[in-house]
Amino acid sequence: MTPDAPGPAPRRRGRPSRTAADSGPDARSRILEAARAQFAERGYDKASVRGIARAAGVDSALVHHYFGTKDEVFAAAIELSFEPALVVPEILDGDTQDVGERLARYFIAVWENPASRAPLLAVLRSAVTHEAAADVLRHFVLTRLLSRIASQLNVPDATFRAELAASHMVGIAMLRYVVKAEPLASTDPEKIIRTVAPTLQTYLAP
Amino acid sequence: MTPDAPGPAPRRRGRPSRTAADSGPDARSRILEAARAQFAERGYDKASVRGIARAAGVDSALVHHYFGTKDEVFAAAIELSFEPALVVPEILDGDTQDVGERLARYFIAVWENPASRAPLLAVLRSAVTHEAAADVLRHFVLTRLLSRIASQLNVPDATFRAELAASHMVGIAMLRYVVKAEPLASTDPEKIIRTVAPTLQTYLAP
Repeated sequence: MTPDAPGPAPRRRGRPSRTAADSGPDARSRILEAARAQFAERGYDKASVRGIARAAGVDSALVHHYFGTKDEVFAAAIELSFEPALVVPEILDGDTQDVGERLARYFIAVWENPASRAPLLAVLRSAVTHEAAADVLRHFVLTRLLSRIASQLNVPDATFRAELAASHMVGIAMLRYVVKAEPLASTDPEKIIRTVAPTLQTYLAP
Repeated sequence: MTPDAPGPAPRRRGRPSRTAADSGPDARSRILEAARAQFAERGYDKASVRGIARAAGVDSALVHHYFGTKDEVFAAAIELSFEPALVVPEILDGDTQDVGERLARYFIAVWENPASRAPLLAVLRSAVTHEAAADVLRHFVLTRLLSRIASQLNVPDATFRAELAASHMVGIAMLRYVVKAEPLASTDPEKIIRTVAPTLQTYLAP
């Protein structure tokens, strides 16, 4: 269920020296990958900035320097899983007629990939059991994501409708990947995309 | 968030005598109410048959006698929250044209009522964090509920389509009642029903 986290970049074989390790985009992305792995394996509650720093081979202060609080590391690690800044425009910019299908396809692809599924499962688990994690999901992730989507939609009540589309996808993730309820759990992804796309289409571009 | 469980029937004031308490439909329903309260307050993992028996004022053996294992008590307590045996026919028997709206209205009513919401929240929390609880939800509740719904639908792939409808409602519950993400969390229930009903309609009676 929880895949191994990608290690540090291949060219760093041993434990990197403090000076080399503590700077640059390389350290930043190592911290993010470590955070993603920690949250996926241990959940929001048990993951710590210190543990993330240790796994990334950097000082805790550097984690705070790049991301701020544990909540902000959590939010950044979640965003890393589905890269909304890159993906949202790509999904919404194309032909309006197919926006539902593009969104369904993207969503299923993210969840079918074990590397991106693990941290999302961790997000769901944490949000359902810890108010602090729900708070992060609500403020840092959903609010930003939904307003970004809504700003590109040309429909009244865009944020509400974007959230209904999101709710459908969250529910599919719950039943297919968490509860693993049949027949959804073993349905061919293409069939799910085909059946769900018209619903998303109705919400986003009626 | 967690309402007090309804106490024993009003005519039993003190601790009921063993003989009177341990028999009849009254004991059975007291056990169920106690189970519902325990699972809601403590979650699947920490609730115990012994604790449920104690809260209901009966012997543990009687809980096993009526329901079997802890899993089966859990399943019965969940079903108590939304009474699928009574409700499914009522929703599906009427005019096919309005089945989406009837389902949306029923679903929102169950979740808006704190007394039925608490145990459902507990179910979600437990299913997301404990494989055993997900298993109960999958086998005892969803499979039965979906096949009951599907048997009354006149549409190809009825179970799959019923599960997609269910997934949408599960996702709405997650975002509105668990994560409390805006704008869904504070949207008027009637507006949610109005917007979601056509989607459920498309799945159940296209």
